[in-house]
Formats: sequence, C-alpha cells, structure tokens
Amino acid sequence: MNIEQNLMSSNLRILSANIKNNILTKRCKFSIAKTVDIKEIVKEHKYESGLHNNSNVNLYTSRTHTCDELRSEDCGKSVILCGWLEYVRLNRFIILRDGYGSTQLITPENASTELNDFIKKIPLESVLMCYGKVKLRPVEEINKNQATGMIEVIVDQLLLLNAVDTKLPFQLRKFNKANESLRLKYRYVDLRYPEMQYNLRLRSKLLMKMREFLINHRAFVEVETPTLFKKTHGGAQEFIVPTHEKGKCYSLVQSPQQLKQMLMVGSIDRYFQVAKCYRDEGAKSDRQPEFTQLDIEMSFTNQDAVMLLIEELLSFVWPSELGKIITPFPRLSYEEAMLTYGSDKPDIGCSAKISNWTKYIPKASKEVFSLVLKNSEDKLSKKQINDLKTLISTNYPDVKFSLLNIRLLKTFKENLQKIFNGIDVEAVLADYNISEHDLVAIASGSKYKALSALGKINEHFKIDYSSDARWRFVWIVDFPLFEMDSNQIQSVHHPFTQPQTEITSDNLLEVKGFHYDLVLNGNEVGGGSIRIHDADLQTKVIESILNIPIETMSHLVEALKSGCPPHGGIALGVDRLLSILCNTNSIRDVIAFPKTFEGKDLLSGAPTEITTEDRKRYHLKIDNVEKT
Amino acid sequence: MNIEQNLMSSNLRILSANIKNNILTKRCKFSIAKTVDIKEIVKEHKYESGLHNNSNVNLYTSRTHTCDELRSEDCGKSVILCGWLEYVRLNRFIILRDGYGSTQLITPENASTELNDFIKKIPLESVLMCYGKVKLRPVEEINKNQATGMIEVIVDQLLLLNAVDTKLPFQLRKFNKANESLRLKYRYVDLRYPEMQYNLRLRSKLLMKMREFLINHRAFVEVETPTLFKKTHGGAQEFIVPTHEKGKCYSLVQSPQQLKQMLMVGSIDRYFQVAKCYRDEGAKSDRQPEFTQLDIEMSFTNQDAVMLLIEELLSFVWPSELGKIITPFPRLSYEEAMLTYGSDKPDIGCSAKISNWTKYIPKASKEVFSLVLKNSEDKLSKKQINDLKTLISTNYPDVKFSLLNIRLLKTFKENLQKIFNGIDVEAVLADYNISEHDLVAIASGSKYKALSALGKINEHFKIDYSSDARWRFVWIVDFPLFEMDSNQIQSVHHPFTQPQTEITSDNLLEVKGFHYDLVLNGNEVGGGSIRIHDADLQTKVIESILNIPIETMSHLVEALKSGCPPHGGIALGVDRLLSILCNTNSIRDVIAFPKTFEGKDLLSGAPTEITTEDRKRYHLKIDNVEKT
Repeated sequence: MNIEQNLMSSNLRILSANIKNNILTKRCKFSIAKTVDIKEIVKEHKYESGLHNNSNVNLYTSRTHTCDELRSEDCGKSVILCGWLEYVRLNRFIILRDGYGSTQLITPENASTELNDFIKKIPLESVLMCYGKVKLRPVEEINKNQATGMIEVIVDQLLLLNAVDTKLPFQLRKFNKANESLRLKYRYVDLRYPEMQYNLRLRSKLLMKMREFLINHRAFVEVETPTLFKKTHGGAQEFIVPTHEKGKCYSLVQSPQQLKQMLMVGSIDRYFQVAKCYRDEGAKSDRQPEFTQLDIEMSFTNQDAVMLLIEELLSFVWPSELGKIITPFPRLSYEEAMLTYGSDKPDIGCSAKISNWTKYIPKASKEVFSLVLKNSEDKLSKKQINDLKTLISTNYPDVKFSLLNIRLLKTFKENLQKIFNGIDVEAVLADYNISEHDLVAIASGSKYKALSALGKINEHFKIDYSSDARWRFVWIVDFPLFEMDSNQIQSVHHPFTQPQTEITSDNLLEVKGFHYDLVLNGNEVGGGSIRIHDADLQTKVIESILNIPIETMSHLVEALKSGCPPHGGIALGVDRLLSILCNTNSIRDVIAFPKTFEGKDLLSGAPTEITTEDRKRYHLKIDNVEKT
Repeated sequence: MNIEQNLMSSNLRILSANIKNNILTKRCKFSIAKTVDIKEIVKEHKYESGLHNNSNVNLYTSRTHTCDELRSEDCGKSVILCGWLEYVRLNRFIILRDGYGSTQLITPENASTELNDFIKKIPLESVLMCYGKVKLRPVEEINKNQATGMIEVIVDQLLLLNAVDTKLPFQLRKFNKANESLRLKYRYVDLRYPEMQYNLRLRSKLLMKMREFLINHRAFVEVETPTLFKKTHGGAQEFIVPTHEKGKCYSLVQSPQQLKQMLMVGSIDRYFQVAKCYRDEGAKSDRQPEFTQLDIEMSFTNQDAVMLLIEELLSFVWPSELGKIITPFPRLSYEEAMLTYGSDKPDIGCSAKISNWTKYIPKASKEVFSLVLKNSEDKLSKKQINDLKTLISTNYPDVKFSLLNIRLLKTFKENLQKIFNGIDVEAVLADYNISEHDLVAIASGSKYKALSALGKINEHFKIDYSSDARWRFVWIVDFPLFEMDSNQIQSVHHPFTQPQTEITSDNLLEVKGFHYDLVLNGNEVGGGSIRIHDADLQTKVIESILNIPIETMSHLVEALKSGCPPHGGIALGVDRLLSILCNTNSIRDVIAFPKTFEGKDLLSGAPTEITTEDRKRYHLKIDNVEKT
C-alpha cells in the first residue's frame, strides 16, 4: 500500500474531506484518530525505502520528513510534512517551518485561484500538514542558506490542522525585536525561534553526553534525592513548604549536599545527579529560584582526582562544532588569583595582570596595586570611565582608586604625583613600559579590597584576545576555610570542607580547605570540595567554630559515625555552563520556562494569591502588619 | 613506578605511618590529600596492566579493584581495596564489603598477635583500606556463593579510614529483621544492603536506557520544566510555596502536563523528561509526596503511535536478566475490563473472569455478577473471608455481596436460593462447572459498583499462575471522558483529553476519550492521552462542561490559539515500575530517601517547625484555632 492509498484509506481521508475542491476550511476540526495507520505509513518510508536518517525523528508521527530533511536526492518522492506557516509569497509559495528547519511548498501550476486566495488568508504560524511531491527548484530559486534550499514540495493536499486565532505578540522572523517580558509571557511562541530550538536541543544533548560519560564510561550511578527536606542552617535562603501538620514545613533543598554525603555513607560510592536546586534569592539578576546542577560525589577519592574527572567529562561532552577545550586546565591558588587578577573567578585570557607598586611610594601607608591597560585610552568613553569609578567607590568605599587616561605622559606624571606624593614615576614608567594611550588603574587600601577593586576593572574591561583559547577554563584552589563577616567567623564555602591542615584556635583564618572552583571565561561554573568524614572534626567545625547548634546537623554527624568513607565531589552549574556555550546574554535563554529576576512566571502569572482552602489546609494566616 | 613505591612516595605513606608496627590507631585521622598521585596508581592498574574491566569503576579512586572484582586469574597481583568491615572470623579473616560485593582478606601467617588482636577490636562497618596480594584460597575455603570466593587477599597494610563510633541500629547481615521506620531513619546504613544497592543501581541503569532509547534512538529532546508553577484548578492537592511577596504562592507541579503542552506549541515536538512531581496526598499508603515520572509528549501523533512507542521503549529497557516482555500488549476497553475483571487495572493473568448471572434470576431487579474461583475453598481462612466481606461492605455499601465457600454443594444450593429466590441453580452449576471446593463471589447492585466489588476479590485473591508471562502488561482504552461525582460532572482523567466523538449536551456521560492506561501485573504504571488542541473545544470543556473559571486556564487556551499542533503523550510511574521490577513490597524500597506514608522524613526529621525568620519573611502566622 502506498501513502496515497493510506491517506485515502485512513481517516486522513475524512480530514481531507474538509477541503472541498482543494479549498481549506477556516479551521478543520482535526484529530489524529486512532484509525490512522501511522505504523504503516511510517514503515513504508522508514523501514522499506530506507529514506530516513538514523535518528528516527519521524517515527510515531504522521509526517514522513521534518522540514529540515529533504534534499535534491529526494526528488520524485511523495512526502508528508507538518509544520507552522512561516511565510507566504505570491499566494503560491509557502514556507513551512518546524523545530528542525523549513521547507518551501508550492501550489501546482493548475491550482484554482480559490486555493491560492485561501492560502493568502491563513494566519501566519497556523499549523499545516502537506502531502505532496518533492521536486528540484528552478536554478534561480535555489536558496543556499537553507538546508532544503535545493528543493520544494508541490502541494497535492494541504490540511489546516489548527489556525492561529489570536494576535501573536511578535513575529517569528524578527528575533531581536521582542522585549524579554513579552518573550517570557508568550514563551510557547518564543520557543519556535531557531535560536531557542538550538539552545534547548543542545541542552538535552549535553546532559545526555554527561550521563553517557558518567554512567557508561565511568560507572557512576544516578540517584534521585528528595527536594522536600529539612531546613539547612546557614547558607542560602530556602523556600519553605507548609504541610497540613500545623506549623510544620519542609524546605526545598538548596543542593543535595547532605544527601549525597549520606549516599557515600551508604556505599553508593560513585554518585551523580542532574539535580534541581532551589534558592529564594529575591531579586538577584540572572539567578533563578530553581536551577539545575550536575552534582557529583565519590568515595575514596581526592582533589586531584575530582578535577581530573571534570576535565575528562567536559572534554567528552564538549560539542565538537564549538571547538576543543584544552586539558588539564591551569590552576591558580586563591591567593595567586587575587594577586594577579583581583578576582577568584578571573577570565585568565582576557585580563590584565596586577602589579604591586607599593615599593615605588616611599611613604605608602597601605599597599598600592596597579593595572596597566595597554593602548586602551580610546576604548572607554569619559562616561564609561566615570561609571566605572562610581562602581568602585560604591563597592569599595575604603579603597583609594584612580583610573588615569593617558593622553599626555606629562599630565599623567603630574597626576600620579598628586595622588601618591613622592612616587618614583620614572621607575614606574620604565618597569611597566607605560606610554601614551594607555589606561592605568591604581587602587590602594587593605590588600584584598584594593585587589578586588582592580578585579572589577578587569571584569568590565576585557582585553581583546585574538586567540584559539575560546574556552578559558581555570581551577581556583587553596581557598581559606573560614572568613570573618561582621565579626563572626563563617565558612567561605560550607562547613563540610576538609581542612588541609589541622585547625587550631590560632590559625582559623589561615587554614586552607580542599576546595576547588571551576571558572570558565570569567564565570564560576562549578565548585566542590573534599568533605570532612570524621565526626569529631565535623562537630568541632559546626559547634565550636561556627556556633551552629549541633542538633540541626545531628543526622549528618550520626552518619559520619556510622562508617563514612573519605569522599569528595563537585557541582557544575548547568544553566550557566550552557549559557556560556550558547553565547546567550542570560541563563534564561537556555531554560525552557524561566522566571524573571523577581521570580515571576510571566506565562502562568505565578506566584498567585493563596486560596482560602490552602490557608485552611496549611493553617496559615497572612500577616497584615509587617514586622521586621 | 610500582604501587608499592607509589604508596611510599605519596601521602599514603604518611597515613600508613599511623600504623606503627602494623598496629592500627583507633581512628586514623585520614584525609586523601592532594599529593596522592592517584592518577599514577590507577594508570598502572588500569591502562598499563589492562587488569580492569571496561566500566572504569576504579578510576579517580585510591582502590585498584572493587570488592566484587578479583578472580582466580588475578592471583599474584598487588591490589588496593577499600570498603566496610562486614565480618571478622578468628581475628584473621576479614570480610570487606563495598557496594559491589565482598572480598575475604587474611592477615599473613607471621602477623603479630597484636595485629590480630587489634583487628578483633575494630567495630563492624568501619571503613578500611587494604593493600595486599591476591592468592588462591585453599580448596576447603572456596565459597561458590561469592563472586570473589576463589581468592583472598593477604594483607600487607591495613588502614582504618574511619571507625564506627556509635551503636548501629541493625546488623547488615539480617536484612529482613529491621523494621522499616528504623531502616528509614538510618537510611545511610540501610542503603548498604545488597538489595538496596541492586535496586538503586538498577534504577539508574533503567532510566539511562530510557534516555538512550528516547534520545539516541528516537530523537527525543529532554526538557526540564519548572516545578514552581501556578496552582492547577482541580486535580490532586498541590503543595504551596510562599514567596516574600505577601500572600503570593507558587504551587509545586503535580505533573508537567500544561508545560509539556506549551512545548508542543513551541515546536519541541518530541519531548520527554524524567520529571519530579509533587502531590500533597496526606496519609495514603505507598504514595510519596514527591515522585518521579517518565513524561513524554509528541506532536502530529495518535493513540496507536504513543502505545507503540511505549511498547518499544519498555522492550528496549527491560533488564535481560528479568525475562522478556511480549509486545504488542493486549488491549481492553474500559468496559471490557470492568465486565471481565471488575477493574480498570486488572491483573489479566492472575484474575478469574466475571460472569453475568442476571439471566438465571427471574425477578432480579438489579444486575447480578459472579466470580467462580475454582478449587479455592481452602485458600482463604474464615478470618480472611470475613475480612474480605467487611472490605466489600465498607467500600460498596449499596452492593449486595456474598462469598460462598463450597464445602458441600447441597448447602451452597440452599444458600444461593436464600439469597436469590428463584435462581436457576442447576443451570448455574452446569454453565460454570461449579463443584465442591470452589469459592463463589456474587455481587448485585448498580452495574459498575457490583463489578468493582468483584474486582476487589480479584485484587486480593490472585490465582496461581504458573506461566512464562511474568510481566502481564495490558492497555486499557476507551475510557469515558466524564463521570458524575456528587452530582457534579468531572473529568475521569483530566480536562485536556481529546474526545473520540463530538460532545453534545445529551451524550456527556457516553463520550469516550482518547485516553490509555498501562497496567502491569494489576498495577497502573502509566497513563496518557491525545490532547485537545482546539481552543474552542478546550474552552467548552473547561468552562461549559466542567464549570472551571476559564481565567485559571487562560495561558493554556491562549497557547492553543497560537498555532498548536495535534499532540498527545503519556507518563510512566517510574517508582511503581521499578518496585514491580525489583519485586519490592513498597515503592520506598526503590527510592534512595523516601518519606513515610505520613510524609515524614525520618532521617532528617522533616517537616520541622517553621522558624520565626521564615514566618516574617513569608508574612505567615500559624492559625491557632482550626476552622474548617
């Protein structure tokens, strides 16, 4: 039985009956009913003619090809295409688009004018099914920018599966023109853009390759851990989930950290999970209340091994069309990174290096650091320079900061002398080869703050880097374990990181941890550590050093006492990594249904008003008077 | 460099320094520090000697083999094993266990008595690392029930990585003795049981094979959809998540139903997701507040095609060691299933068939159905029969029900006459070949209630089935679209199912939907439908028929108007499917960290009391007086 007979024998016939004399009804009440023998149709095309590629992308559907699939060698074949009406030209040429690409349809020479008139009336973006024959385009019609540009399909039957019946918020041919809130509200239309299709399909492929590497090549086990869990003391703000038990709540996990440690205790020694995590961060730009991380943990491992794993993993999954990555990634200690780039997430290829100028200034009371941006005088406008100065003074009020634009060396020398009386200007000029048209940033103050101020400059002022190092990975290691914040000691990362040396009361701020951050092109894309597996040490850190009530962590401490192997792991930020890979402005462009930076879902309107039933069920009253 | 040198040159040397004269410290403050050159150790064993299998299960760790890996051909090799101390015999023989299996270690002939004495003192389940040499066991020591039973490892160095320092709640050698709440509270110990290891590892493998099939073989795209979404009107009770915006809440999705439909509108035409879903079902046994489903949706498809996809998927992923499944699965309409088995999730291989006895009873005012359980008289105790009767009368108070235990045919005839005056007993006996030692269940009342009562009997009374049909799949189709509940019309499944015929005001309860349930061994393991893609029809169903305010669904209706292709899909219950595959009593045994049937996490104690900070942040007061 050929397709034509199939079409006739199936209920597609009933559907096509709606098209009297080839004229389309406004909206054909279409349903692919169970009597359509799709298996037969597909078999013919797939298994018997061997026409399809290996991906089987058309199996289980009523199409024979996607809109990206037909080539000149398909000429003469009868095909069924399904897709969206992107564009009509001269009432005869139809661009049919799906998630894969587009194909040109053309009505037959002898088509009735009524048909052509009707085609004109179909709203753009309506859903069509076309049965027709593939032919070569005339030479002058060939479109080399379209994968199917060599061919077109002569329409034999055209079915309007579903007509657009509303004013669409934006046109699909103008990607950059819609504003983001409109795109988020009508995400189901926005997703049709080739860019969004690419991003979501790449995301799926990348996560699949991660799983193939970890499960098939490295014997890891993916374990789903609960997201409704107990509140973690400290760390990010966690969402709460009230239960019907009065006053009792779950928290949505901010990461599976404790749970994966429990898995190590439980002999699941090579764990990973593509884990959904939650943080109630309020209005922080480019964060999402729910996000995805590739969460990994291993027993009987060490820091080098985890780093090696990640380097091998990323090499394996990196899309070949985006260029190779070079391993091993360079490593910088936290101290080196700060001293060299002023940042613990430096873009090592696109940053100027910081130099210490203290020695040139006889009476310097604080350390003086400088960043020389060669031949950059004309790269920032006066306004941009002022904006940068404001940024620094706001973020680092205690740092003495200057950004000098060298139009004339003479003026520069005078200015420098004004700022640092007695500075050996000639030595500075010679040692750093400073000349006209350079930009020089200088920061003086307490060491890490002055360095960070210059780091901000590096962040906002990326040096042109004409290089093959498109992907600039770097590991940052040897972080301090603790820091002071408002006179309170706290973990730099979290209380579970294994110290590199013994902790005493004297060296709290000096002790380094086995913690490692992964930085890509100046963005933190991952972080992990070797964990404490000794219950006494963990108790000491939680209780004696951090002053966290040990009861809140008793399940973890009890687990460490029950036979816990040495272990460590890492988590990669999937959204951030993809956003860099896809070169998008925001992580929202690699997430199917993201929320705004205020946490709103513009599509559904969530969050919405709590209902009376839910108030009762969860014993909640909403406070009328805000007390804080 | 060989391992020995490696051990000596690395900080394992430092660690082993803790073992003075081969005597172990109580707890060696062990940390695998970054100076251990694990790469080198592993390379020797893996890449150079080619000793490992392909799974690379030891990469990135300090072991050379798992405890399940050594065989007689490994004799003479130097190895490093890591694991848990399961058992000590004669102070010399140590059973070391990890998540893969166990290996016997033995101290050398010339070991000091101090060493042997100390081994005796190591608490069971402590974590050890052993460096030693593989040798064949003496013939009399060979253990054929252990994969490594041909060999043992002579201990050269033994490191106590972490000693158990608490009383363990149960012994690892007695799986069935611990009660479940103890197992859940100490899940990190419970997970070490070989059964739990098998279940979690099978779960990971099965989900990976599903992904391989869908992505690599069937060109699907996995898309993560948000779990913080808008409340769905109707359906299961959804958890709410308060936000800092006063009185505004997200809901945790009960399924990605609406979101996957939006993806279809957005040209992601072959979607799937291993999706976390949430339902606040309170105390329903064997349900979890969060659970996992394999969620699938396709455009341009139909019911047959979705069913074919699932049959191919399950055939592909089914673990070969568990026997084959036979496709295509049989199909029953809802009506047939009810009339034959009294259930819409029948165990078709293990159920007796219902017969209609109405015709034998001259004055029957209601339909009479019967279930004859051949030779089953002795299979239920009097108590079990009474319990069943109580169950039926509680669940179906309007159904007249009898369960007759035929010890004597004469008595049976008399009893039957008492119940149904005028019944043609002889015809019944002949037609159904009833004889002594049979059990006969009879139910009379309104059709579906009477049938369901007998379905309950089938559910509780599985007929022995000695067959190769270990996996009894069946599709249930042609469900009614609507049903009456407390005089209100409602969807049998959900409001998005495509009707098979036009809906009029007269045929509401007759219209069937394109819905399909997948049943395995009497358990519903999946369900799906072809969806409504026409905005007018969807509006009619939501607003006119179901009386749901259309505003709550405006985002969906608007999407249907924006170019929505015909589409349909299905969701498989991953927890339930695995529980059947693993033959566990409960889905909790295939979930790493499940909650009790009251929704409690015994491990962490969640849900816990809401904090004052959270009350303030989310503007919540807890109601003191319960009003309902």
